[in-house]
Amino acid sequence: MSTFGTLFRVTTYGESHCKSVGCIVDGVPPGLTLDESDIQPQLTRRRPGQSKLSTPRNEKDKVEIQSGTEFKKTLGTPISMIVKNEDQRPHDYSEMDDYPRPSHADFTYMEKYHLKASSGGGRASARETIGRVAAGAIAEKFLQQISNVEIVAFVSQIGEVKMDRNPFDKNFHHLLNTITRDKVDATGPIRCPDIEKAPLMVKEIEKYRGQMDSIGGVVTCVVRNVPTGLGEPCFDKLEAMLAHAMLSIPASKGFEIGSGFAGVEIPGSKHNDPFFFDKDSNRLRTVTNNSGGIQGGISNGENIYFSVPFKSAATISQEQHTATFDGKDGVLAAKGRHDPSVTPRAIPIVEAMTALVLADAVLIQKSREFGMNVVH
Amino acid sequence: MSTFGTLFRVTTYGESHCKSVGCIVDGVPPGLTLDESDIQPQLTRRRPGQSKLSTPRNEKDKVEIQSGTEFKKTLGTPISMIVKNEDQRPHDYSEMDDYPRPSHADFTYMEKYHLKASSGGGRASARETIGRVAAGAIAEKFLQQISNVEIVAFVSQIGEVKMDRNPFDKNFHHLLNTITRDKVDATGPIRCPDIEKAPLMVKEIEKYRGQMDSIGGVVTCVVRNVPTGLGEPCFDKLEAMLAHAMLSIPASKGFEIGSGFAGVEIPGSKHNDPFFFDKDSNRLRTVTNNSGGIQGGISNGENIYFSVPFKSAATISQEQHTATFDGKDGVLAAKGRHDPSVTPRAIPIVEAMTALVLADAVLIQKSREFGMNVVH
Amino acid sequence: MSTFGTLFRVTTYGESHCKSVGCIVDGVPPGLTLDESDIQPQLTRRRPGQSKLSTPRNEKDKVEIQSGTEFKKTLGTPISMIVKNEDQRPHDYSEMDDYPRPSHADFTYMEKYHLKASSGGGRASARETIGRVAAGAIAEKFLQQISNVEIVAFVSQIGEVKMDRNPFDKNFHHLLNTITRDKVDATGPIRCPDIEKAPLMVKEIEKYRGQMDSIGGVVTCVVRNVPTGLGEPCFDKLEAMLAHAMLSIPASKGFEIGSGFAGVEIPGSKHNDPFFFDKDSNRLRTVTNNSGGIQGGISNGENIYFSVPFKSAATISQEQHTATFDGKDGVLAAKGRHDPSVTPRAIPIVEAMTALVLADAVLIQKSREFGMNVVH
Amino acid sequence: MSTFGTLFRVTTYGESHCKSVGCIVDGVPPGLTLDESDIQPQLTRRRPGQSKLSTPRNEKDKVEIQSGTEFKKTLGTPISMIVKNEDQRPHDYSEMDDYPRPSHADFTYMEKYHLKASSGGGRASARETIGRVAAGAIAEKFLQQISNVEIVAFVSQIGEVKMDRNPFDKNFHHLLNTITRDKVDATGPIRCPDIEKAPLMVKEIEKYRGQMDSIGGVVTCVVRNVPTGLGEPCFDKLEAMLAHAMLSIPASKGFEIGSGFAGVEIPGSKHNDPFFFDKDSNRLRTVTNNSGGIQGGISNGENIYFSVPFKSAATISQEQHTATFDGKDGVLAAKGRHDPSVTPRAIPIVEAMTALVLADAVLIQKSREFGMNVVH
Repeated sequence: MSTFGTLFRVTTYGESHCKSVGCIVDGVPPGLTLDESDIQPQLTRRRPGQSKLSTPRNEKDKVEIQSGTEFKKTLGTPISMIVKNEDQRPHDYSEMDDYPRPSHADFTYMEKYHLKASSGGGRASARETIGRVAAGAIAEKFLQQISNVEIVAFVSQIGEVKMDRNPFDKNFHHLLNTITRDKVDATGPIRCPDIEKAPLMVKEIEKYRGQMDSIGGVVTCVVRNVPTGLGEPCFDKLEAMLAHAMLSIPASKGFEIGSGFAGVEIPGSKHNDPFFFDKDSNRLRTVTNNSGGIQGGISNGENIYFSVPFKSAATISQEQHTATFDGKDGVLAAKGRHDPSVTPRAIPIVEAMTALVLADAVLIQKSREFGMNVVH
Repeated sequence: MSTFGTLFRVTTYGESHCKSVGCIVDGVPPGLTLDESDIQPQLTRRRPGQSKLSTPRNEKDKVEIQSGTEFKKTLGTPISMIVKNEDQRPHDYSEMDDYPRPSHADFTYMEKYHLKASSGGGRASARETIGRVAAGAIAEKFLQQISNVEIVAFVSQIGEVKMDRNPFDKNFHHLLNTITRDKVDATGPIRCPDIEKAPLMVKEIEKYRGQMDSIGGVVTCVVRNVPTGLGEPCFDKLEAMLAHAMLSIPASKGFEIGSGFAGVEIPGSKHNDPFFFDKDSNRLRTVTNNSGGIQGGISNGENIYFSVPFKSAATISQEQHTATFDGKDGVLAAKGRHDPSVTPRAIPIVEAMTALVLADAVLIQKSREFGMNVVH
Repeated sequence: MSTFGTLFRVTTYGESHCKSVGCIVDGVPPGLTLDESDIQPQLTRRRPGQSKLSTPRNEKDKVEIQSGTEFKKTLGTPISMIVKNEDQRPHDYSEMDDYPRPSHADFTYMEKYHLKASSGGGRASARETIGRVAAGAIAEKFLQQISNVEIVAFVSQIGEVKMDRNPFDKNFHHLLNTITRDKVDATGPIRCPDIEKAPLMVKEIEKYRGQMDSIGGVVTCVVRNVPTGLGEPCFDKLEAMLAHAMLSIPASKGFEIGSGFAGVEIPGSKHNDPFFFDKDSNRLRTVTNNSGGIQGGISNGENIYFSVPFKSAATISQEQHTATFDGKDGVLAAKGRHDPSVTPRAIPIVEAMTALVLADAVLIQKSREFGMNVVH
Repeated sequence: MSTFGTLFRVTTYGESHCKSVGCIVDGVPPGLTLDESDIQPQLTRRRPGQSKLSTPRNEKDKVEIQSGTEFKKTLGTPISMIVKNEDQRPHDYSEMDDYPRPSHADFTYMEKYHLKASSGGGRASARETIGRVAAGAIAEKFLQQISNVEIVAFVSQIGEVKMDRNPFDKNFHHLLNTITRDKVDATGPIRCPDIEKAPLMVKEIEKYRGQMDSIGGVVTCVVRNVPTGLGEPCFDKLEAMLAHAMLSIPASKGFEIGSGFAGVEIPGSKHNDPFFFDKDSNRLRTVTNNSGGIQGGISNGENIYFSVPFKSAATISQEQHTATFDGKDGVLAAKGRHDPSVTPRAIPIVEAMTALVLADAVLIQKSREFGMNVVH
């Protein structure tokens, strides 16, 4: 369905050619300072070709809060937000509509809904993510208020050009400890904070653009200052909710947390994260963080970090041999010029989904505090 | 929480030292032939050191259906199943209880619940998965009945010993098309169907056992004969539900579907799965299957396949330098001998969680068929 | 929370002084013919002083579909609808804001949210129901398509003036079998189809208007052509969902189905509904219908009928002795002139909530049909 | 489905002729003192003919906690409870099975599930309520701990014999303020605290027993010491959740809160509950309580009170003219002797469902307290 979360809950709507896209965010605690200026920056970062927070001139994808705030404070009631679509008309039929686009949602939507919408797999459109980003911005503001939570995502791989994201390497953890959105955006639209790799990634993208092709990439995300105790044992482990959230983003193909796939080669004696008492924070911490900030499904207060691969964009600017809905072989014509890598644009979406997972986990954990304070 | 699914829904209970573990499965369609013999085989496979379906002698972890069936048919009402715990007494205090075990759930459970249970992170115990496996067996029987769905998981990596799981390789897809549980179990407890790699994996495990250490691995799973149209656009994409399910399994650290992480290096022109009309099945199919059987979050009828890394077991048979709950440095003594690799035992759990996701998706999609038949 | 339903699901937003009110309806089956003209009539009926479906001139509360339809067909994706608020500005402070209005939500909202919104209990505002009525209109259209379901609510009591709603009386069942919305609206804004009682009810209302007071009433609702098998045993019995829906309407104070409160005085031998075979419909039906169309929580195909009392409006045009938020005794001044009876306006809301319950139950029951067709 | 609640959540299982009945209670805060002795009393009260808490000799319906507690403390993990069925075998076919029992669930279960279970409408059996009562006892203990909440239900009507439950009468409120379970049970199995009416009610029941017939009744319930702020605006108003809960109890036909149906005849000027500052409790309270402790869907701290009618038992000890499943007219033979009034046995079920609604509302409201403390 189109709803995510239990207590901090977003419901999105909208596809490419309807009047508007947006969402309702329910369960936002009352009294939080909030207006559109808290939400617009991430929406702007989501737009194609944008990177700086500071270029709202000639704004598109402008969000309007409909409800749930008064005098720039949340009321505790549902917050509805809308962003108007510029192109609101379903397009006319063209020969290309005979073809389900390869690796798109056209075919599967037809199998699911048994009808052909103008925009093919309508909800598979990237515009659907606008509602998520808007909702995530509210979640993020809430998390900042209660625990100074910081969420920063960045591009760590484009095609074969990879940043080192070895969890057993101190440099990687230094990066995770210090990276900021400003540093990410400082490298321009590529959004890779590694100043050596960033230009190589740009080159990689340009190569595929030249070939009228596309290329994939990986987004890595870190969350700092996470309260301990978030997440549920069993089905709703914190990493399970994060994986759910990440795999719900269009074009994502996976998820790994902490040491991830690479970690399986490291024996337990090295992979385990031993504890020590940290005088600065006056609490138990772990020496290493191969767990990625979550143990037994519950946050331990260390950095949460994870990576998400995004496939090469399915829409490409060259011909493709394929078949029509009716089963006839043919060639799907090239159409316009397309962004050869959508990975950098996924950054604010990854951040938003992360914030939504954490805000919900915070509210759920809060509901248990009786046990600690009263019942004992 | 301890509930998974919307219409086909399991709720589990139980930890290591309580009276029993088990589950309630709600939403199972009525009229399905079912008794304990449908459920016990996977529970037996879940037990340590077991591999063959055919050794139920001297059975442990014996399941008892409490409700929801009559004369070996499901009634449509909730099916409760219980498995008794052998060791039902909370253990006595020992010095080891002063230490939160590294990379275990002891510390995070304390942060979450503010109390110290006898079994530390109780619900993080592998025994919790018994309820899942029992529920999954029912889901699987249902899926077989309606569409002959086949779910087979196998070990594809132990430590540095890897089977080739290159999605661009025809041999890999041949394996996915033909692998059966019998073939998986034929290689013994290692559960790797590659007869060259299997003994090397066994050796790898033995190496770490000799070092009183542990080692991780990867489980790969394929689902054949999946109906088209399963999964929801937006948040509950089929791969998002699978990722959620897999990351909820203890010790899992990631998930990748179809081409996964490797796929980001393949340009769109090669990565896209073109369509062709398949005369045998009389429907549109894809030439390649880098999508892993899901496009836009919805199943396209091709094989669904994905991989899940499991970390090296946190419980090891050697001393560990760490700290007590109170923050004192110390050495957590070695305790007994432990299984150096839990990956092979994850096989039936991965299969069960897969079945639960798919059965729920089937029921949800079924509820939409008005649109197709009546409303048009 | 602000979401209702499992598969056919509405989420509403908005309060009195925000930009707009509205909803997202998720889970509407694809292919249903739908545009604003299906929705506006009930919204118009919901407005003060309206009764005829045919007076859309100078329309207010005009609904705009934002998403989920194309060429007047539903896509299967979420349908967002908005209605603009005319008065979008939070009002200025007045002395009256010192007082929580008696029997309003001002005090309880303050206890819940710990802040004072301009519109007091904002979501308790009747404007919140606009989203419900819009969503209900879609549910109703769906129900008509699949089973010609008819839902008609009417005023059966105002103050001490009561229509006979004795479930053991044939005349009452004749009324339930034949009442239509046209007949209900034919009596004008009072919406009572009993042409003798209707003018007495109008008089009753006028009496209280003259006294600057208010008076309550009862709404009775019948649903015809309900498919059998709807509703779940145990917690989500169909009557439980209806009761939940009805008690969620502002100012409602109760619910009774079938013989209701009066039925407890009738012995089982007379109260039981015996079966007979009905040749016209070629199925088993019941001779009487004290059950109100639901047995064991599941619809039996007979008329569903129930009644809902609405309290006398809390806002009255006379002074009230009460206390301020700060606990000081005082007199809350009279303010303007207010509608002495809101009961007739509840009609379309009762119909909408009924439709939402039934549409969801239909989808859930549909998901079970495997059991019947395939598994047996 | 068989699950109730969002954060404090019960899932029940079981029917008449299966091995056991019971439930899983998820979301119970950790650290609560709990063992079987907290649960058994209400289960014992639920059994036929029982009234005193103090007769556990020769116990039947004995509950066993399976999980979720250790050393008599809750762990925060799911608490599973089971009660064995004495008669575990599906009964043999008899001629009576040809007939759907009038006003029972036999016919509707057949329509829903398309199969005939041995026990007819299996989950419609009163045994299903055992899981609810067990879960409710835990909820109640939690509520007592955090706010000394008291929940007392009693029989207020049997057939035509009624206690006065006029909300505008001070005597009624005195009763609500002072009634205890001991006082309720002091009148014996009739459970009516009015010592004049109780014997008349017993006589009424005896009359119908003599006629091999049955008779209905009304249960009234009061909740004292309810925290303010519980319940959600819009769909999940506290009274809507209570109505949902009450109408989910077998044989219930309605619900009214506060002034209920009678209140519609009282003008707003008298019906409104004005505020005053109560020095004893140092907070705003209401002079009258026609609202029944809930305004705008949210608890205001006054007594919550409501009434629920239960129909005359459908199973009677006399012949009934009706039809077979196949549509043939016939006479359903009388069978054994049956309890002519089930109303008194509903008392602990009403109390349990009330506790479940409130415990869930408390946890949900707790999750919002950030807004109050931190964000402002």
